[in-house]
Amino acid sequence: MALIVQKFGGTSVATIERIKHVATHVQRELAAGHQVIVVVSAMAGVTNQLLDYCAQMNDLVSDAARANCDHVSAAGEQITSGLLALHLQSLGIPSRAWCGWQIPLSSDSMYTKARIDRIDTVAISQSLAEGNVAVIAGFQGISPEGRITTLGRGGSDTSAVAIAAAFNAEVCDIYTDVDGVYTCDPRIVTKARKLEKVSYEEMLEMASLGSKVLQTRSVELAMNYKVRVRVRSTFDEALGTLLVDEEEIVEQQRVTGLAYSRDEARITLVNVENRPGVSAAIFGPLAERGINVDMIVQNVTEDGKSTDLTFTVSKGDLARALEIVKGGNMPKFESVHTDSNVAKVSVIGVGMRSHAGVAADMFKTLAEKNINIIVISTSEIKISVLIEESYIELALRALHTAYGLDAAEEK
Amino acid sequence: MALIVQKFGGTSVATIERIKHVATHVQRELAAGHQVIVVVSAMAGVTNQLLDYCAQMNDLVSDAARANCDHVSAAGEQITSGLLALHLQSLGIPSRAWCGWQIPLSSDSMYTKARIDRIDTVAISQSLAEGNVAVIAGFQGISPEGRITTLGRGGSDTSAVAIAAAFNAEVCDIYTDVDGVYTCDPRIVTKARKLEKVSYEEMLEMASLGSKVLQTRSVELAMNYKVRVRVRSTFDEALGTLLVDEEEIVEQQRVTGLAYSRDEARITLVNVENRPGVSAAIFGPLAERGINVDMIVQNVTEDGKSTDLTFTVSKGDLARALEIVKGGNMPKFESVHTDSNVAKVSVIGVGMRSHAGVAADMFKTLAEKNINIIVISTSEIKISVLIEESYIELALRALHTAYGLDAAEEK
Repeated sequence: MALIVQKFGGTSVATIERIKHVATHVQRELAAGHQVIVVVSAMAGVTNQLLDYCAQMNDLVSDAARANCDHVSAAGEQITSGLLALHLQSLGIPSRAWCGWQIPLSSDSMYTKARIDRIDTVAISQSLAEGNVAVIAGFQGISPEGRITTLGRGGSDTSAVAIAAAFNAEVCDIYTDVDGVYTCDPRIVTKARKLEKVSYEEMLEMASLGSKVLQTRSVELAMNYKVRVRVRSTFDEALGTLLVDEEEIVEQQRVTGLAYSRDEARITLVNVENRPGVSAAIFGPLAERGINVDMIVQNVTEDGKSTDLTFTVSKGDLARALEIVKGGNMPKFESVHTDSNVAKVSVIGVGMRSHAGVAADMFKTLAEKNINIIVISTSEIKISVLIEESYIELALRALHTAYGLDAAEEK
Repeated sequence: MALIVQKFGGTSVATIERIKHVATHVQRELAAGHQVIVVVSAMAGVTNQLLDYCAQMNDLVSDAARANCDHVSAAGEQITSGLLALHLQSLGIPSRAWCGWQIPLSSDSMYTKARIDRIDTVAISQSLAEGNVAVIAGFQGISPEGRITTLGRGGSDTSAVAIAAAFNAEVCDIYTDVDGVYTCDPRIVTKARKLEKVSYEEMLEMASLGSKVLQTRSVELAMNYKVRVRVRSTFDEALGTLLVDEEEIVEQQRVTGLAYSRDEARITLVNVENRPGVSAAIFGPLAERGINVDMIVQNVTEDGKSTDLTFTVSKGDLARALEIVKGGNMPKFESVHTDSNVAKVSVIGVGMRSHAGVAADMFKTLAEKNINIIVISTSEIKISVLIEESYIELALRALHTAYGLDAAEEK
């Protein structure tokens, strides 16, 4: 008998009918002799509505206000957990709903984006031993002050993985509206293949690069606690994609998948004075205003006296970033150019560590298609390039074929 | 400095704008130097929707299911309490939202209709002392098992009165969509007057007779703990009607008010065998099936061998009651007659204890209007008669005038 943690996202519990459907996955695992802990999100749209109500009441700047906001927004998951438990009971499956504070799932006091400190397993273990399915409201915990906290957007993924770790679960199944992790977005690359396994590190890069399957934090957590996480579809029985340790992937491909992001804008500062502290003087004020800078490239000019500095921000931050750069207290520069018609393409794979030439192949493939590379940035298991946005589909398809990722032709 | 408890019902917090309006009542009491505890209901319609969701999931017969149902339905008040606290904060009023379990408001384990055992005042008293307004989610508590309970329909009134008692509040203001308790329903009797004071006992009779201003249980609680409850309108500043001890009403009228109920149906069993245990044999099975019998009259025939038995039930229970009466295991009777075109009119007043002739005046007034009395039932402070439903308005207006309750003519 193993313990299985199942997590169902907002679209999986969007309606009464869908909540009822979720029970089929619980029944299947029980029939196989397993114990089941279910973690649920709020019905799709509910959390947004509650947060919208809160925003109509308060600017939510103060900690005290954010604490009251969590008191409101945690209600969505509470409702879903009770409803699923009720349906399971009506099928003859003993079942109990749990709020975060009842477990308790203890967090810090960073309301609206709390971090989990500790999960008590005593009460739920006893309930499981009595034959109950535990249906837990995701996204929420309790602060040292005894108030309700929430774990930030996508927090139910984090709840599920943390609970799987605390209970030493055999697997943490993340049920969602896609059936797994693909080599690339199938809406763009029709030959994209579903991956059976993907390493935590690769998944982390994909998550942070815009593949919205799993919240980055939950992947980090899974990696740290070696939780076997499986991304699978609520709407069928297929096993989806398993997140595992790098070592478990026996035959590593050079490249596991491609990710992309259209939400990029480029800023280039021309002829910035070149002296120590210049980068800090530019990027410090941006960070203070909460603007996330992604790629950064700097080239010193021949005389060494000045430099061209290019960096990217999200499209929504471009105007504000420009304002800051043009404002006071900045190093001297000659001019500033911006471009929001850019996109980022990334090649990801733990195999890069042992296979050479991945970058060279990328540049060659893009060159053959006459796609100009604006910025390059690399990590151990990833190469990202910034290109003109209109070339994004062409680039992804060409790279997908070049790295041998295309699915075999359908017969 | 006094402590004021304010309770706002579902229509008073039905929208974001109305929740914001509620703050004006809090501000006024704070400006007068008082401490304020607010108890809120769910936004109008929310609890019904949550209970409807639950009913779609489960028949809610088992205790375990009702516990999960409470887990769902308590969310409505949680949301409102957080939103009001947020709005107060945005007005510069320090404020904290409280769930029942955070107080804690301890109840028994009768899920969906729990009774309050104890209210801890330590945590909220400390929060008040720190200058916060406490905004409490009504309708909910926590069971000895640590699960969320709800106090049954209208439970927020009960929460508010119990909290006022526990904190020894100066007054418990029940804000609602009417501006007080009237001598009679103003939609029927246009000359009805608002009462400045009404005794707990009278309010109890009115509540149980269909004046839906306050939940019966909350009035009982107020009476037992001598809580000064004031029924007043959310939409103006008028003081409404104060519930007080009988002794506080110095000049008692013979009759304080009139109540009525259209939800009555009559059942008459003709020539029931007259032997000991007959009543128990008839009303036992009805009670077991949850059918509430109101008025009961029995007349023995001249020979003493049989009796005619008339009783009333609510219109919705008539068919089921008839089924039970006609089913097996009943005493012998000749025939059964039913009538659902009946209604109950009641005259209420603690003054009846000291003033004679109230009943005689009632019968005389109805006789003058040619209204036939089908059943009479009396208590110490109430006389109720069952009449043909079509005469109800006529009866109420005639009695209102006869007992001198009419408002003075508007100038």
